[in-house]
Amino acid sequence: MLIQEKITQAKSILREHDIDCWLTFVRETSLNGDPTLPFLIEGDLTWHSALIVTKTHAYAIVGQYDKKGVEDLQAYDEVVGYVQGIKAHVTDYMRRINPKKIAINYSTGSEICDGLTHGMFLTLRDYLYEIDFQDRLVPAEKIISALRQRKTEAEIAAITEAIHLTDRIYAEVAKIIKPGMTEKEIAAFMRQRVTEAGAGYAWDPKSCPAVFTGPDTAEAHYGPTDRVVERGHIVFMDFGLKVNEYCSDLQRTFYILKEGERQAPPDVQRGFDTIVASIELARKRMRPGVEGIEIDRTAREYIVQAGYPEYPHGLGHQVGRFAHDGTALLGPAWEKYAQKPFQKLEQGMVFTIEPRLPVPDRGIATVEEMVVVTETGAEYLSSPQKELILIS
Amino acid sequence: MLIQEKITQAKSILREHDIDCWLTFVRETSLNGDPTLPFLIEGDLTWHSALIVTKTHAYAIVGQYDKKGVEDLQAYDEVVGYVQGIKAHVTDYMRRINPKKIAINYSTGSEICDGLTHGMFLTLRDYLYEIDFQDRLVPAEKIISALRQRKTEAEIAAITEAIHLTDRIYAEVAKIIKPGMTEKEIAAFMRQRVTEAGAGYAWDPKSCPAVFTGPDTAEAHYGPTDRVVERGHIVFMDFGLKVNEYCSDLQRTFYILKEGERQAPPDVQRGFDTIVASIELARKRMRPGVEGIEIDRTAREYIVQAGYPEYPHGLGHQVGRFAHDGTALLGPAWEKYAQKPFQKLEQGMVFTIEPRLPVPDRGIATVEEMVVVTETGAEYLSSPQKELILIS
Repeated sequence: MLIQEKITQAKSILREHDIDCWLTFVRETSLNGDPTLPFLIEGDLTWHSALIVTKTHAYAIVGQYDKKGVEDLQAYDEVVGYVQGIKAHVTDYMRRINPKKIAINYSTGSEICDGLTHGMFLTLRDYLYEIDFQDRLVPAEKIISALRQRKTEAEIAAITEAIHLTDRIYAEVAKIIKPGMTEKEIAAFMRQRVTEAGAGYAWDPKSCPAVFTGPDTAEAHYGPTDRVVERGHIVFMDFGLKVNEYCSDLQRTFYILKEGERQAPPDVQRGFDTIVASIELARKRMRPGVEGIEIDRTAREYIVQAGYPEYPHGLGHQVGRFAHDGTALLGPAWEKYAQKPFQKLEQGMVFTIEPRLPVPDRGIATVEEMVVVTETGAEYLSSPQKELILIS
Repeated sequence: MLIQEKITQAKSILREHDIDCWLTFVRETSLNGDPTLPFLIEGDLTWHSALIVTKTHAYAIVGQYDKKGVEDLQAYDEVVGYVQGIKAHVTDYMRRINPKKIAINYSTGSEICDGLTHGMFLTLRDYLYEIDFQDRLVPAEKIISALRQRKTEAEIAAITEAIHLTDRIYAEVAKIIKPGMTEKEIAAFMRQRVTEAGAGYAWDPKSCPAVFTGPDTAEAHYGPTDRVVERGHIVFMDFGLKVNEYCSDLQRTFYILKEGERQAPPDVQRGFDTIVASIELARKRMRPGVEGIEIDRTAREYIVQAGYPEYPHGLGHQVGRFAHDGTALLGPAWEKYAQKPFQKLEQGMVFTIEPRLPVPDRGIATVEEMVVVTETGAEYLSSPQKELILIS
């Protein structure tokens, strides 16, 4: 169903960009998978395979043993199975379609559009030399970006379900955190809840949830340690789930009250409030047509003007089948982000907003919300954290 | 430990091939993973990352948030973390190493050596243009192939453990198969055993185990169906597990006795015996220095001379971290196999041997064993199936 829906969407994107052929060329996808593949087939393809979408049709050329599985999808007008080699089939189809442009899955600036390996590129170019089509190759970045970012209702529903489950587990863990618990114990509790819910993880479970307590932690992309929760420290977590193949990605900030404290001290409260305000400011500027760099700048400047250092990453990324998904980014003009911050927002995009700042001797204040871009703005998909979660 | 061991091995392979620098260049590896990565790091890398191995040293350049995780491996002499961009770090290291050749991970002929995406290739080439090193790039196929195929004792031990568990579950399922059961019911029983054992699957669990009963099935790469086991039919299964990140891949053939039958009828027995004999013939010809095509030809000709059609695939593939792993292949000179069948066998390689043949109106007779190439020959890692498994 999803695949039929997405291939129909792809045809319309090809018409919109006037590209008459999009070719996904893969082999042994269980070990070298193109990130576009889950929109085009279920499971894996073994031998060299070509998935061809035109403005009106879709064709698949796959190894004989993969043919029946692809036919079952009822998404392709023709499915060819071969035994010895794919070359003659690819050149036959290309001659028949005779496209002015053949869009293929590579991009320097967007990893999500860069599933074609260099070896497969060379192989394909050799095939096309034989029919003098080699100069028709163009990158499929616009097609793939549009296909991923224009979320259908079913996709938004799956993401929302993942968010709700994440929210629920955050609420549960808030009740059991106590001073003296280790990051690992907190993570173990949450993983147990994930198992009970039958959900998957949005990224490598070794660092999902990531739990960081106090100052001087790895701060991100690191697994929970034996470090102990201490009074007077901030604890934050980064946690995302996968439900029906779609992801959530949320961060929450906790403060561990000292004996006698009824609320967080001013330095912690001010850091947290600055984060929450910057998220809301950023969200309010989001609408179709605005570039991501503007949104990032809004939050970044707000935080710097409040006297904190700027966060060492983008403000927010898209979310979809992967926790980091899509081309357009709410980010600064840094080398590694290439042209991503200059893409215009579009209705249906799902973004995180996740600024951070250090509170000296306390830890990191950071909140990560998820929003969807609407016709006129952006709405929270998550229930935004407006108050510090106080642990006594 | 494995990573330290494999990086040490990589340095010695670089010396052997006189290549003074091997560069693995990746980003967002949770969605575009280079299959070489599990030998170089644990988990994923987020931003553009360069993993550099020379004949004597190893260096990692990674995003700031991935730095601590890579340092923890204690496998790299230097770990650099960056925030905005990697380019200057890569060109600095390349100038410092000043390699005559820079081996990178692409290959037209071997998917396991083809982890570099085309977009990342273009990015790297642009970096190297700036220091006039662009002509030093060479494919790393020989390095990666050697690294994967020369299994250490620890790797063989993990594979053997996966094989033993697979054997055990095959033995258990043989006791519960009855006429009238569906392929799905058989698979469900086996999956339950996998869960109880806490093991992983060697490939997409939708078709692991694959269960095929009788004639006119999809024959491979297809999930179990509602088709019912019938007397007088052959049932075969393809099943592989992952234990400690290493895989097994085994097929077994069952015959469902008719009422009154005490043994399989001659057509079924002859088909099965032909398969078993061809496997043993092939294994006996395996030894270091022989090309895979010779081994494939041995089994293929034996089966054809016995009056059966040739199997529409290679005789056997290597197994490792993936069920299909490695460059050298026991296969015919078909387009899709490129130069793989012409690679010479080497001590430490682990192969499947998996011929098949159809028995008209009965099903497919096929057995898949696993062997390791030794100094002088090849030895079974699996307990070879010598007799049809008879179900009454």
